[in-house]
Amino acid sequence: MEEKNTLMEKIVSLCKRRGFVFPGSEIYGGLAGIYDYGPLGNDLRFNIKQHFWRTFVSGREDVYGMSGAILMPERVWEASGHTVSFADPQTQCLVCGEMFRTDHGDILREHEEKHKKDGKEPKWSGSKPFNLLVESSLGASRETAVKAYLRGEITQSVHVNFKNVLDSMHPKIPFGIGQIGKAFRNEISPSDFLFRQREFEQMELQYYVRPEEGEGARQFEYWKQFAFEWYQGLGIRKEYLRLRQHAEDERAHYARDAWDIEYDSGVGWKEAWGIHHRGDWDLRRHQEYSGVSMEYAGEGERFIPWVIECSGGVDRAFLFVLLDAYREDELGGERRVYLALAPHLAPIRAAVFPLLKNKPGLVEKAKEVRQMLRKSIPNIAWDDNGNIGKRYRRQDEIGTPHCVTIDFETIENDSVTVRDRDTGDQKRVALSDLTAFLK
Amino acid sequence: MEEKNTLMEKIVSLCKRRGFVFPGSEIYGGLAGIYDYGPLGNDLRFNIKQHFWRTFVSGREDVYGMSGAILMPERVWEASGHTVSFADPQTQCLVCGEMFRTDHGDILREHEEKHKKDGKEPKWSGSKPFNLLVESSLGASRETAVKAYLRGEITQSVHVNFKNVLDSMHPKIPFGIGQIGKAFRNEISPSDFLFRQREFEQMELQYYVRPEEGEGARQFEYWKQFAFEWYQGLGIRKEYLRLRQHAEDERAHYARDAWDIEYDSGVGWKEAWGIHHRGDWDLRRHQEYSGVSMEYAGEGERFIPWVIECSGGVDRAFLFVLLDAYREDELGGERRVYLALAPHLAPIRAAVFPLLKNKPGLVEKAKEVRQMLRKSIPNIAWDDNGNIGKRYRRQDEIGTPHCVTIDFETIENDSVTVRDRDTGDQKRVALSDLTAFLK
Repeated sequence: MEEKNTLMEKIVSLCKRRGFVFPGSEIYGGLAGIYDYGPLGNDLRFNIKQHFWRTFVSGREDVYGMSGAILMPERVWEASGHTVSFADPQTQCLVCGEMFRTDHGDILREHEEKHKKDGKEPKWSGSKPFNLLVESSLGASRETAVKAYLRGEITQSVHVNFKNVLDSMHPKIPFGIGQIGKAFRNEISPSDFLFRQREFEQMELQYYVRPEEGEGARQFEYWKQFAFEWYQGLGIRKEYLRLRQHAEDERAHYARDAWDIEYDSGVGWKEAWGIHHRGDWDLRRHQEYSGVSMEYAGEGERFIPWVIECSGGVDRAFLFVLLDAYREDELGGERRVYLALAPHLAPIRAAVFPLLKNKPGLVEKAKEVRQMLRKSIPNIAWDDNGNIGKRYRRQDEIGTPHCVTIDFETIENDSVTVRDRDTGDQKRVALSDLTAFLK
Repeated sequence: MEEKNTLMEKIVSLCKRRGFVFPGSEIYGGLAGIYDYGPLGNDLRFNIKQHFWRTFVSGREDVYGMSGAILMPERVWEASGHTVSFADPQTQCLVCGEMFRTDHGDILREHEEKHKKDGKEPKWSGSKPFNLLVESSLGASRETAVKAYLRGEITQSVHVNFKNVLDSMHPKIPFGIGQIGKAFRNEISPSDFLFRQREFEQMELQYYVRPEEGEGARQFEYWKQFAFEWYQGLGIRKEYLRLRQHAEDERAHYARDAWDIEYDSGVGWKEAWGIHHRGDWDLRRHQEYSGVSMEYAGEGERFIPWVIECSGGVDRAFLFVLLDAYREDELGGERRVYLALAPHLAPIRAAVFPLLKNKPGLVEKAKEVRQMLRKSIPNIAWDDNGNIGKRYRRQDEIGTPHCVTIDFETIENDSVTVRDRDTGDQKRVALSDLTAFLK
């Protein structure tokens, strides 16, 4: 148990210490399964979202973006089946009253051991489904209040707007609608840091295709490969990612096919991304429950499209990127920690150091260099505190790909020392080449 | 009443028709005060947020970004005073039971008229405060559920993380923390489209300064001007914006000074942005309620900083930008509607048209041009449908600054026709100059 959590514990600690992630409302004891993103975490998260948006949405001519509200009425979730089937099996410890997921055997056994040690006989209630939708209500009085749910998935925001997008954008099938946004689940046991949260962010594409076996299969295969390549573009090592097909009994009853991209977390393969062939389930149900036609009208034809869904968690991608990038090695005889982040995701793209803090010539020159770089690279850090070795370590730990040191030679010949995060190698680079070199 | 709503009604209609904004979950009758953003609205909103982030956060060396969770525990809102004072006065119509804001005289009178017409005597209950926090609960059973609120403002996410940012980023005072994110208010009477919503997005800066009168006043003045200039950078006409100081009785009891940027909406000046001197209210209350020190420690000194807040709504900025950009005029003998959006906000930066749809040479050339432009300008639209005049009108209505037409001359001499949205003027531009021209 100790061993298997070590890497995760190191990540949690690094995230807090260096301003990536803090427990939500920590000074008040926090809320289980809720986190706040600090300065560096916010940047890394933004970069991950941009990586998704550029590849799946804005970079494509057949995909539209949108952004739906978090609060949605009860009827949406009746149509989607969530009020009935969005549930985990739950059991109660009859010794102390605590609730657990019935399907988390490890945790149940651990809990039993605790009571056995205290000389108590473990006893469990029967397993019951527990609905995961987070409920709220709107309205000016208790009598007139309207029940609303915090959306349990962002998917339905797209499907309920399918007709609006048809009518305003006049897309030609096949086409997709992409979205990034928050969703909520009242998890019985939030766990594994950002992996199983109660408030989390999703990035998704719903891609509508002609309802034909051949076309459906072809599009499914295309998006499966597209998503897998994209996920590798997060910089995660190839051998830590795999595509796995859901077995028949894992799939939702309406799913025609379903695959997951999984990440080898060190404690088993974990779900990172789903590519699901949902058929016409969502649109047909919304047509039935709302009475609004969900048909696509082409030239001389009308049909309810099938949908191929690509979807995954921003926070999960964030966590897996960090787990995968975390490295400990020895450099120049010293142990160090570094994050081997892909440059396009790193919160800081490069750090600029004046060799000495109190030499006005050096400091001014270094400020000039930083100014120059900022024109085309937004996130440039500055550090003039302590010796260069320490500054390297600080940047290594947050995954800054390059450190640029301005020294006495810079003033003589306009060249700087650029140090590579992963190898520690240093190189002289002319100032005139520096922006291009870093890019 | 008819007249005063005309512009707003036109905007609501344009927003729906052209894919900017749809009523939330519309196919199920919607939820009052909740909206979904469509493809073009999502882009405009993203561009507004980027305009904020680059100016207030990433473009500055003294400001850190962060992103807090929406769900926060009850204690946060006790500390901030929201559980007691985040309320609107509410009155109930004793004829029909409907709830209203006591301070919305116009609406009350309108309601009274309705009953009088039906021969009923209007009667109101006494006015009572109605708390606007949206409540929810988390936990695996009713007995163990924890009350949580959807944050009523995003401000408190920053203050509760003040210590975490100090400990992880080691900032030197003065410094700020910026955030963009959603907040929720159980508005009694959501109204005016995006102006008064129940779910909305805020963009804010909390800027911490030394607690001294002179420094506080100097920083306040600086941020007041900074925010006002920034707001004008949204492209809103100068004469439609003003800065107004709150009267003593408008201010929160802790506020040392408070100004609003207001927009002249045509039906009165409306609050667009606030610059508030909050003193040490927030940090002192959180220190008191959490028991965690909120002191900043400098060289040989410790103090609770004062905070200058710059804050405003993304959705409001979105609405005001549209209200201000909406124009009707006559061009070439035809009436038209256009949005005079600032180019850095426009959802589509330029549209590319092949003059004729069925001429392979033209279509291919036009695709090449679009491809070339997309390399440095992300949002390039394509339209080959109908005559050029109609295509111009369609782009005008969504605020596209330039349309680029590929015609037979293009194939001869690599020049295109570029048409300006506001004037309708057309110009020949060499392909080699086109990217630079559009930028």
